[in-house]
Amino acid sequence: MPGPNHYDVTTWPVGDPAWDIGQVINSIIADVKQRQAVTADGGRPGAVIYIPPGDYRLRTQVVIDISFLRIEGAGHGFTSSSIRFNVPEDEWPDLHELWPGGSRVLVDLAPGAGVDESRGAAFYVERDGSPRISSLEFANFLIDGLHFEPDGSDLQPENTYVNGKTGIHVASANDSFRVNGMGFVYLEHALVMHNADALSIHDNFIAECGSCVELRGWGQASKITDNLIGAGFKGHSIYAENHGGLLITANNVFPRGASSVHLSGVTRSSISNNRLHSFYPGMVVLESTSSENLVSANHFLRDHEPWTPFLGIDNGREDTYGLLRVSGSNNSVIGNHFSEIVDAQGIRPVGSTPVIIRVAVGSGNYVASNHVVALDVHAATSDSCFAAQVDALLATDASDGLVVTTVMVDPESARNTVLDSGTEAQVVADRRVNAVRATPTIGS
Amino acid sequence: MPGPNHYDVTTWPVGDPAWDIGQVINSIIADVKQRQAVTADGGRPGAVIYIPPGDYRLRTQVVIDISFLRIEGAGHGFTSSSIRFNVPEDEWPDLHELWPGGSRVLVDLAPGAGVDESRGAAFYVERDGSPRISSLEFANFLIDGLHFEPDGSDLQPENTYVNGKTGIHVASANDSFRVNGMGFVYLEHALVMHNADALSIHDNFIAECGSCVELRGWGQASKITDNLIGAGFKGHSIYAENHGGLLITANNVFPRGASSVHLSGVTRSSISNNRLHSFYPGMVVLESTSSENLVSANHFLRDHEPWTPFLGIDNGREDTYGLLRVSGSNNSVIGNHFSEIVDAQGIRPVGSTPVIIRVAVGSGNYVASNHVVALDVHAATSDSCFAAQVDALLATDASDGLVVTTVMVDPESARNTVLDSGTEAQVVADRRVNAVRATPTIGS
Amino acid sequence: MPGPNHYDVTTWPVGDPAWDIGQVINSIIADVKQRQAVTADGGRPGAVIYIPPGDYRLRTQVVIDISFLRIEGAGHGFTSSSIRFNVPEDEWPDLHELWPGGSRVLVDLAPGAGVDESRGAAFYVERDGSPRISSLEFANFLIDGLHFEPDGSDLQPENTYVNGKTGIHVASANDSFRVNGMGFVYLEHALVMHNADALSIHDNFIAECGSCVELRGWGQASKITDNLIGAGFKGHSIYAENHGGLLITANNVFPRGASSVHLSGVTRSSISNNRLHSFYPGMVVLESTSSENLVSANHFLRDHEPWTPFLGIDNGREDTYGLLRVSGSNNSVIGNHFSEIVDAQGIRPVGSTPVIIRVAVGSGNYVASNHVVALDVHAATSDSCFAAQVDALLATDASDGLVVTTVMVDPESARNTVLDSGTEAQVVADRRVNAVRATPTIGS
Repeated sequence: MPGPNHYDVTTWPVGDPAWDIGQVINSIIADVKQRQAVTADGGRPGAVIYIPPGDYRLRTQVVIDISFLRIEGAGHGFTSSSIRFNVPEDEWPDLHELWPGGSRVLVDLAPGAGVDESRGAAFYVERDGSPRISSLEFANFLIDGLHFEPDGSDLQPENTYVNGKTGIHVASANDSFRVNGMGFVYLEHALVMHNADALSIHDNFIAECGSCVELRGWGQASKITDNLIGAGFKGHSIYAENHGGLLITANNVFPRGASSVHLSGVTRSSISNNRLHSFYPGMVVLESTSSENLVSANHFLRDHEPWTPFLGIDNGREDTYGLLRVSGSNNSVIGNHFSEIVDAQGIRPVGSTPVIIRVAVGSGNYVASNHVVALDVHAATSDSCFAAQVDALLATDASDGLVVTTVMVDPESARNTVLDSGTEAQVVADRRVNAVRATPTIGS
Repeated sequence: MPGPNHYDVTTWPVGDPAWDIGQVINSIIADVKQRQAVTADGGRPGAVIYIPPGDYRLRTQVVIDISFLRIEGAGHGFTSSSIRFNVPEDEWPDLHELWPGGSRVLVDLAPGAGVDESRGAAFYVERDGSPRISSLEFANFLIDGLHFEPDGSDLQPENTYVNGKTGIHVASANDSFRVNGMGFVYLEHALVMHNADALSIHDNFIAECGSCVELRGWGQASKITDNLIGAGFKGHSIYAENHGGLLITANNVFPRGASSVHLSGVTRSSISNNRLHSFYPGMVVLESTSSENLVSANHFLRDHEPWTPFLGIDNGREDTYGLLRVSGSNNSVIGNHFSEIVDAQGIRPVGSTPVIIRVAVGSGNYVASNHVVALDVHAATSDSCFAAQVDALLATDASDGLVVTTVMVDPESARNTVLDSGTEAQVVADRRVNAVRATPTIGS
Repeated sequence: MPGPNHYDVTTWPVGDPAWDIGQVINSIIADVKQRQAVTADGGRPGAVIYIPPGDYRLRTQVVIDISFLRIEGAGHGFTSSSIRFNVPEDEWPDLHELWPGGSRVLVDLAPGAGVDESRGAAFYVERDGSPRISSLEFANFLIDGLHFEPDGSDLQPENTYVNGKTGIHVASANDSFRVNGMGFVYLEHALVMHNADALSIHDNFIAECGSCVELRGWGQASKITDNLIGAGFKGHSIYAENHGGLLITANNVFPRGASSVHLSGVTRSSISNNRLHSFYPGMVVLESTSSENLVSANHFLRDHEPWTPFLGIDNGREDTYGLLRVSGSNNSVIGNHFSEIVDAQGIRPVGSTPVIIRVAVGSGNYVASNHVVALDVHAATSDSCFAAQVDALLATDASDGLVVTTVMVDPESARNTVLDSGTEAQVVADRRVNAVRATPTIGS
């Protein structure tokens, strides 16, 4: 048996982890606190709590107020619940499995818990005083919200992305947290972190949640790297507000989030080297004076919803909104690829010209060496989610060019620089107050 | 003892893992299936199978058809077998160790198994029906093919990269698989994945294999990130076909693969921010109408084979083939560095001008802000693999400039844009049908 | 109990890990060597040594000379010692914890050990002969140097970054090492690696150390990826010498290192896609003929020290030194964002114009598509480290433009190319010997 700070939920004498892992983990945390209350020279090393593969209901919220706790499973166990819930119920007996697996926490809090956002969280972290709570780690297990609920729309209940459940909610200032190798599925909010410093969200699988990563309050010097992420149509795949020095890189963000990356009041941060895919405009939004950020070396793909259960759903934004929309100053948009692959007949407002990069408000932005591909395709759809997506992704043949505005600088903006990011006609900007060098054309 | 879904190959009562770990793991899988056949509400969480450090022969192929299985070791245990096999045998008694280590699976399938590609695989994954098999994870162990075999050439048998062995072969459509922290060595094929969705191949060490990563069939939304990879001269370091939304980033790909990254029919994907090193032309190949991809912020180095056992070996491609070769449309090639460091006397065809970026077929490609360095060096070689490579890598002094074509757009291609990627003389393209802005020169 | 090659420091019969984990680990290594001295066919798989969460003093240096050893904890346990030591001592009883935690090794070597750099290392790795020592892994534990010492300056002793302690010191040539998920704090040198091949330093937390990552001697084909790193004002956050093919990417490097990335004699390597933040000039230094490197898609932020304990401290470099300084040839500097946010009154030499990119020596460098933002701000400071940093990071309002030289090419340099990286006035270079295309301005 390893040292006293190594726990296993299946061998802890208090509670039944299959019935309520929340009670078990809270009991373990109480034990850690009691044992480490008095120490020789102040050392409180925390503990690791191991969750072996298995199904564990969580009926009691886990409340964490100690540093250096690592909660660790042996598998993120993701499988698509969205696809399964859209399989006719009479076919379920033929399915190999009905649910996600791995080290799986089934969020089963009492009805109504989610009315209060913090009470609807499976894992709730809060500690006042000093120092900030540090080095909490979540690794290699799955948090499964199980079901979505009717939202009053025509959507099937399991397609609403609404259930009042949150995977992890961190309410107070924190330092050096880690979320690694986790899975999140069917939660209205997967991961909500307030006031983070030096946070690492790395190599996770966060999909089929209303919103995936939300950095709220304020924070600095964090990274969101190398994740597979895809939110529901109502929410954010990656959201941050009032952060500085945030590095968002090497993520593969897939549909259908209302946005892929949404920054509000974020400065001196990077969105670089990500693969971003969306079905709607407003893939990347820099708003509320988000300034001095770098958006670089990303691949943006916007195409159409191919899966029948979500046909007609969108994020409410028109095609003139911009795939990338900037409201702020002194940002750099360099060396990105944009593919806009849509059915011209579906463009909204009807007859408008879609906008790819839109500098709505701000000055001193530098937009250079971006390549925009725009194709008019006839949208094929399918009952099979995976096949439809792959078919759409690979389809490049039967398509025509589509007229787009590659860069639009609004009249509210001035002193921006646009280089090699569209032809003279594709860049809409007042040349009297912005510097524009059009991408050369043949013979120019 | 952790929960019932946590297994250890050294304590499982069936079989002897040192004699045949394949039999042991298959027995464990049978146990998981039998125990999880009937569950209260359909939950089948899978299991983790732990392989402690040790040598484990695999005489029976592992066959996997359940989701949520994690096979995990405690060390990828790579050491160079290639260097060792090229040490004279009378020096072997002086060596600290002869073989790789860590949690090491020694692939010892019956002779002839590899004649059939799927039978030559140590780990074989296949499941029909729905849903697709999900969240299989391989982590932190080594798969060692032990020996290569004579291939009829003049090469020493251990230098052929041929033995009919595959590390992991996934035959059917799959979702959310992970391969993390693994080692692969001396396999003809390390990792072959068919029809992958949301696959993550992250932080592995895959070297001295015929081919390293092969994504076959079709697939989407996957990532190959942060790996150390280097194939044999016959094979692929990273290969993908008919994939969309693939993110290949932060990899350090070293020689001597026939290619560093080879994409066939791949669309809307990224090769960005990798360090790529090869001894031959054709480092990155986009073929069969690979379109709308982003090749950005990569460091390409092509120099010469410095190690005597492989002198004279190459991939059969001439220097006019291109270090980066594009056959497809609407791709973006932005902000890459290319170093071509070769002995001018070795250029093939004799007297030809090497080509760095070649747009062979396609339109709408955007090639901008690439920097090409070309030097003529006298190739030094050595019996010591490591010393030779480091010496070659660091040598920049005794070199002269080399005349190259930085960008060649073939007559079959039109409507491409080439910006700041070579001087007027270095860019070979029909200006009547392509837009070219040469890199400014002094006084221009 | 897992196989014989799986050890736990808390159950090993020799020594007391709380009193001296060094003695325990050395005893385990001796056991591995003795058991694996004679093996059937030369297999020496090594072992894993597990360190559960807890406080473990290290009074005896761990000496490692076997391959395939993995030393693994269950938590990097970082918390800021720097902030704590600058809290008035009478407030300590109110603190939740005084020390870092997790699987924590407290470096408590005999006084004077650090006079000799190798003797001051907690973990010392050396092996002569062949093959090179391979696949050593350090994972998921913390090495804590505990205290800094007076250095003769006016600084408080705990703010000096001096104590003669090193976390890990690798003295001899090595292959395929891994350092993953580790924490390092309050060490004069965190990680010193000589002569590394295919090294991976990934996803670590290395902060409040004199220097963080130092790759010394020579080496190749390694990666430093996805780390959170921040050295002391005297040292290096990331340093490498005589390396080729090094990939430094996806790191978030925060203050206050004397440099963020410092390369000496490094060739054909990449610094790409990092977020870099410093309080001094000389953030990235390429010196001693560092050539053919790619510096791409990075976010550079230089602002001012906001925390009162370190006011007045700097790295001794003047503002004309360059945030990025290049001494070498044929490098590529493409698509970076630079923010220089300083109080104009603090610029040194007084009245000088700060330089952002300085090509001091060398030819053939290619500097393109870089965006420089320079603002004059009145430096606010605070007793609270975190609040001060976040305030400074988010402050963009009350600022004026600052005149800077975006690119300076020294007279010693010629045949460089500077494109779109500053206006005609902002680029200082002899146009007779360098090619310059200024960033277009309004109406130009």
